[in-house]
Amino acid sequence: MSHPTTTGKWLKLCLAGLLGSLIHLPAIASTPPKLGNSQFVDPFIGTGGDGHTFPGAVVPFGMMQLSPDTEAVSRGVDPQPEIYKRCAGYHHDDTTMLGFSHTHFSGTGHSDLGDLLIQPMVGVAHTKPGTVNSPESGYRSRFSHDREWAEPGYYAVDLLDYDIHAEVSTTVRAGIHRYTFSRGNTGHVLMDLTHSIYNFSNKVIWSDARVVDEQTLLLHRRTNGWAKNRPTYFAVQFSRPFDDIELINEDNARYRCNGCLDKGGNKHSTIVNPAEQYTAGKAIKVMAHFNKPTDKPLLIKVGMSAVSHANALENLQAEIPHWNFEQVRSEARSAWDHELAGIDMQGELKEKRQFYTAMYHALQAPSIYQDVNGQYLGVDGAIHKAEGFTNYTLFSLWDTYRALHPLLTYVDPARVNDMITSMLVHYQQSPNKLLPIWSFQGHETWTMIGYHAVSVIADAYLKGIRGFDVELAKEAILATANHPRFDAIPEYKQFGYVPMDVLPESVSITLEYAYDDFTIARFFEALGDKDNAEEFYRRSQFYRNVFDKRVNFMRGLDSKGNWDPDFDPEEAKYMGPFTEGNSYQYTFYVPHDVQGLIDLFGGDKPFVERLDTLFTKELSLEKIKEHEDIAGLIGQYAHGNEPSHHIAYLYNYAGEPWRTQQRIRQIMDTLSSDKPDGLAGNDDVGQMSAWYVFSAIGFYPVAPGDLTYAIGAPQVPQASFRLANGKTFAMTTEGLSQDNLYIQSVTLNGKALKRSYVTHDDIMQGGKLHFVMGNKPNKAWAKAKSQRPPSSTEGR
Amino acid sequence: MSHPTTTGKWLKLCLAGLLGSLIHLPAIASTPPKLGNSQFVDPFIGTGGDGHTFPGAVVPFGMMQLSPDTEAVSRGVDPQPEIYKRCAGYHHDDTTMLGFSHTHFSGTGHSDLGDLLIQPMVGVAHTKPGTVNSPESGYRSRFSHDREWAEPGYYAVDLLDYDIHAEVSTTVRAGIHRYTFSRGNTGHVLMDLTHSIYNFSNKVIWSDARVVDEQTLLLHRRTNGWAKNRPTYFAVQFSRPFDDIELINEDNARYRCNGCLDKGGNKHSTIVNPAEQYTAGKAIKVMAHFNKPTDKPLLIKVGMSAVSHANALENLQAEIPHWNFEQVRSEARSAWDHELAGIDMQGELKEKRQFYTAMYHALQAPSIYQDVNGQYLGVDGAIHKAEGFTNYTLFSLWDTYRALHPLLTYVDPARVNDMITSMLVHYQQSPNKLLPIWSFQGHETWTMIGYHAVSVIADAYLKGIRGFDVELAKEAILATANHPRFDAIPEYKQFGYVPMDVLPESVSITLEYAYDDFTIARFFEALGDKDNAEEFYRRSQFYRNVFDKRVNFMRGLDSKGNWDPDFDPEEAKYMGPFTEGNSYQYTFYVPHDVQGLIDLFGGDKPFVERLDTLFTKELSLEKIKEHEDIAGLIGQYAHGNEPSHHIAYLYNYAGEPWRTQQRIRQIMDTLSSDKPDGLAGNDDVGQMSAWYVFSAIGFYPVAPGDLTYAIGAPQVPQASFRLANGKTFAMTTEGLSQDNLYIQSVTLNGKALKRSYVTHDDIMQGGKLHFVMGNKPNKAWAKAKSQRPPSSTEGR
Repeated sequence: MSHPTTTGKWLKLCLAGLLGSLIHLPAIASTPPKLGNSQFVDPFIGTGGDGHTFPGAVVPFGMMQLSPDTEAVSRGVDPQPEIYKRCAGYHHDDTTMLGFSHTHFSGTGHSDLGDLLIQPMVGVAHTKPGTVNSPESGYRSRFSHDREWAEPGYYAVDLLDYDIHAEVSTTVRAGIHRYTFSRGNTGHVLMDLTHSIYNFSNKVIWSDARVVDEQTLLLHRRTNGWAKNRPTYFAVQFSRPFDDIELINEDNARYRCNGCLDKGGNKHSTIVNPAEQYTAGKAIKVMAHFNKPTDKPLLIKVGMSAVSHANALENLQAEIPHWNFEQVRSEARSAWDHELAGIDMQGELKEKRQFYTAMYHALQAPSIYQDVNGQYLGVDGAIHKAEGFTNYTLFSLWDTYRALHPLLTYVDPARVNDMITSMLVHYQQSPNKLLPIWSFQGHETWTMIGYHAVSVIADAYLKGIRGFDVELAKEAILATANHPRFDAIPEYKQFGYVPMDVLPESVSITLEYAYDDFTIARFFEALGDKDNAEEFYRRSQFYRNVFDKRVNFMRGLDSKGNWDPDFDPEEAKYMGPFTEGNSYQYTFYVPHDVQGLIDLFGGDKPFVERLDTLFTKELSLEKIKEHEDIAGLIGQYAHGNEPSHHIAYLYNYAGEPWRTQQRIRQIMDTLSSDKPDGLAGNDDVGQMSAWYVFSAIGFYPVAPGDLTYAIGAPQVPQASFRLANGKTFAMTTEGLSQDNLYIQSVTLNGKALKRSYVTHDDIMQGGKLHFVMGNKPNKAWAKAKSQRPPSSTEGR
Repeated sequence: MSHPTTTGKWLKLCLAGLLGSLIHLPAIASTPPKLGNSQFVDPFIGTGGDGHTFPGAVVPFGMMQLSPDTEAVSRGVDPQPEIYKRCAGYHHDDTTMLGFSHTHFSGTGHSDLGDLLIQPMVGVAHTKPGTVNSPESGYRSRFSHDREWAEPGYYAVDLLDYDIHAEVSTTVRAGIHRYTFSRGNTGHVLMDLTHSIYNFSNKVIWSDARVVDEQTLLLHRRTNGWAKNRPTYFAVQFSRPFDDIELINEDNARYRCNGCLDKGGNKHSTIVNPAEQYTAGKAIKVMAHFNKPTDKPLLIKVGMSAVSHANALENLQAEIPHWNFEQVRSEARSAWDHELAGIDMQGELKEKRQFYTAMYHALQAPSIYQDVNGQYLGVDGAIHKAEGFTNYTLFSLWDTYRALHPLLTYVDPARVNDMITSMLVHYQQSPNKLLPIWSFQGHETWTMIGYHAVSVIADAYLKGIRGFDVELAKEAILATANHPRFDAIPEYKQFGYVPMDVLPESVSITLEYAYDDFTIARFFEALGDKDNAEEFYRRSQFYRNVFDKRVNFMRGLDSKGNWDPDFDPEEAKYMGPFTEGNSYQYTFYVPHDVQGLIDLFGGDKPFVERLDTLFTKELSLEKIKEHEDIAGLIGQYAHGNEPSHHIAYLYNYAGEPWRTQQRIRQIMDTLSSDKPDGLAGNDDVGQMSAWYVFSAIGFYPVAPGDLTYAIGAPQVPQASFRLANGKTFAMTTEGLSQDNLYIQSVTLNGKALKRSYVTHDDIMQGGKLHFVMGNKPNKAWAKAKSQRPPSSTEGR
């Protein structure tokens, strides 16, 4: 069983609880799920396959993600496990669990985090993780999906090797653990600061642990992972005093003299005070011991900060001042119910499960990154105080500018302003004076390409979300898009494309710059700045320069004007001219000027033929072996990675929207489900899920910033947006079924809608979009040029 | 030549300058030394032997010590050099120089620091130090003492391999380098963040370097040395833009992909932006290149902070806002002249050189440790702001409570208040709630024994220096002296001594606790707190419990009451019952109750006999081979280490002050000079120098806190203290000479002084202490019991 979403499952859960352990039944039975939309969320979706989501506890956009890790890189573990599979620490295939760590990415294709692992035990107090085949050789415990529960803001599991029922829940910056022991004279709680997700096995730069009193610890570590020098501070409080504690420094010998023991049996010298309740080094673990653990459940509260021990403690005291686990759980659940009410979707339980889980995954990041006192770690490595806004981090922009950020403009526009302000202060604090590329926790990782922050800002501004410093935004956008050093911007401006002899991924970078420039042009156009608008409209057409008309493919071009002689449109070569993709996919990356691209192809017919080829021509895995991110294939189309996300909607632009309707259903049926492996690839910090939310409702932002949405086909019976302006935009269907996948007709507020797109204004004015579905395509609907979604070249 | 202290030497210097390089002559010739006492200081004294002082630039109590390093631990240097000899980075025996680093201890016997090495070069731009035998294999350069100059706040040397004249000077928190090139098309300046003094070769936990603009860099590193995780931040500014710069990460491969090169020839991937002017890792070096270096001297300004890059830059801009090297040098010199005016000493040039160099060494630490904005790194690892005081660090208390802190109560009492407040905030911020033991730069090292901070506080309070929080001081003193975990305080209180089966160094710890407890008793007595005074007077007598009357030696005693069966009074065993000493020395460690000790011995005669034995019985080096700190021997007496410092004065307490006079002269003649090897052992952050200053004037604080000074014998003709109350306390002599080492008579303000001590009140009332000297001892002077220095048991 995965989680309690139905009465039947709930009963089964209770039964499992009864059969398994009477001790932890009351906690579960006394808290039946409330009836908000969070009841439909299954946090296990995406934990299988390569979804890379985590099943643990988090609140909407929360700073802490408290979740079980089933496998991770840990010093001394040899061989290291397959790490890509465990980007979120947990994988549904795994059968043993290491414990609970407090920070996780949701859906990323590269990873980091896993800070502060806590694992309760009875019996031998293990300090090493042990192996999968022999979990009893370490602190690792077996677990079973039959004895595991998850709901938004809450996760529970039975640690079978220890007969411990473990539960966790969170607030924004703090978490709470509840461990119910059912046997043993002494319970042990290991806090392992060496545990890490992904990356190098010697990832810990430095760490320390200090005993404040018998119920309070302060912990800290800095890691060199995806972020180069990332500090986390933790304040840990136990619900009862420990009976004994061990501060373990696995490199201890280094700080002690040889051959001299003090009263504690520790080595002594005049430069060590072994009685000090403190240790520091690169391999620090703390083991707390509690006698008579079965007396009552042991609770552990953990506050987190990137700034200081003091802030970690302050965050904890502010957010969980009590010892009421159920209150934390209930408040987390309420926060999710509130957030998930942004869209009221009606349909079958399975559909609701998939839909609200997608929303759940979409509403986790960018995540809050500041302490309750407003302090946060800036990308300049300094501590700042957020004044007049809430600071957010985790900008996976290459992924999320596409659908996630546009989704947020409807379901949580207030946060959009804070997210943009966070990107602007990043720009100000960035020593390179650049908007974020792929940043998290005070660090710019430089991952992926483009400068898509500009798309997010422009889309929001054009939609009227303007609660940020617009002058600063103008400065930041221009500084970024004209940066003298970043990647190949000077050459892009000089040549009109990025020459392949200047930088790898040159074609993808050219195409994505061109789209970003379109959004900049739109932004300055709206501001009345004609010069900048014109300049960036001009740049937005640079995509044409890498289109080889002889083969109708986007293709590498060098600085001397020679096309890539080794061109293979199917090949996705690492550090080739394309980024995590091939030319079949990237040739369609002109989201802002599809008509211009159709013209380059020579008209609708060759364009549609190529789209068909994309979806039908088998892609040899040999061609993409250098990229683990390219997944979820239909022919050459890779739903599991972002460069494909808009492509199924492009038939609309060639007047054949029924083909889009067909493809969307095909993708939904084959690459998406409500099972743990229901995501066809990395969720990518909610982008895949946001694609699902839009597509299920029936339209998609092909080119954020142009304020139009290409209509695909609704996949759920009805859904309505609760808009910030108090209005509701409702989508309804008639006749939708497995067979009735084609649009017969559409009405908007009762009037026939003959175009294959809706606009932002259509949505914000509220009203009703109604689809009549059938099992045969209506090939005449929205076929005319005037009925197709607009492109940037039109009317300009 | 060592430094310009005489006209002859100055001329010789100028001549050397003329012969060596015309280019750097004007800078020197245009700045003749001013005529304050700093003209007498020779910073090279103590740089030979095991003095462990550094010759570079520092202002009084300055945060930055900018000094050349001749040998150091550096990653990749194999074999590692002899590190004990280079505790201050520089040793007078060395013939090659690595460059200039910005932090140094003066005189310590353990070490750390050496942050940010800068070395200018021409020719090959070396990034590795190279070897002593083949300095051309790296950035190291040969140098010669003939082409080297030092004065307070200024140091200069010719780097012979590069024909570069290098000069440095400092303010409190910033430094300035001036490099005068005489050849080469391109000058190189290496900034090496891997360079370290002492300790492990992989000392750097993390470091980073960022180019702000073509004249500004921000650097940072954290090291794991004596302090476990010590951050330093630097802002570096060049007087002209560099022509090229290289950011070198010697572990680079770790952060880059394989097989893909970008336009710069760097390896490229989507998670690296090689164009970024930033690097981070464990082995970071920066090489700046300057074309046409001979055009004019290159100046480099460096600001330092323990808090942040921003503070480092702010410190620099506040303290050196200009590019006038001579101004910095001149202001540093003036600061020293002002500070060294605290004592007006008259005598021969050689005497002045030795005396004022001792003062110079005594007035460097505890050093300022806060930024211009008041922020500093606390011992809790957090950033604090000093409110109403200036924060100081570097409390080598086991050494400095003896004579350095008492000296400061006369020459700079305002700083004493700030130093005490700094110790009190250390107590507050200390997670262990302990006053500092041996702390520096936000870290408690736990080095050495006792809790001598209490002596410093009590001595100052009793002298009327009370500009600190006395209530907090009471709390801190009681918490420290009754600490439930530190070393063996509970057992000390339980048994009346530290049992040798509980903790090593048990006898030394017992004796030093007993002295500290005497100062606490005095403190509470002055406060009118009779209970605490009585309790600590009681504890101050615990020294008796480790005195074995059968052998008249202090001796290890176990918890069952058995004397150490392996007792050897000459042996100084590592982790034996004594701390860097043997029983011959430590048996005399009852500074606060010498009469009580004499009584234990059975009277004056056996006591004096043992003193004589101490000074005459040869100590086999075999007995002290486990301690490199025990140096400067006269018999068993080790002037080079602190446990002996008061002993020569103890004859006074047995009525034979003429023997003290003899010993002091013997020590002065054989273990002290104005040469580089003129210190008989580590200067220990000024303690050895403070011993010299007091002893040269003619008296010494045997037991700080009792407000008396045992009279030894003046070694200089006259000296007067400029007191903060506006009065002057003058010491004058009559007949003092090499032969006339004995006191014939003494007058205080014209009246015969028949006692062999002066009091703090005598000093503070101003006036004149006059010694009449002769070549025969006056054995009758101060022989009577009533004329001897008091002991704690008297009158209580």
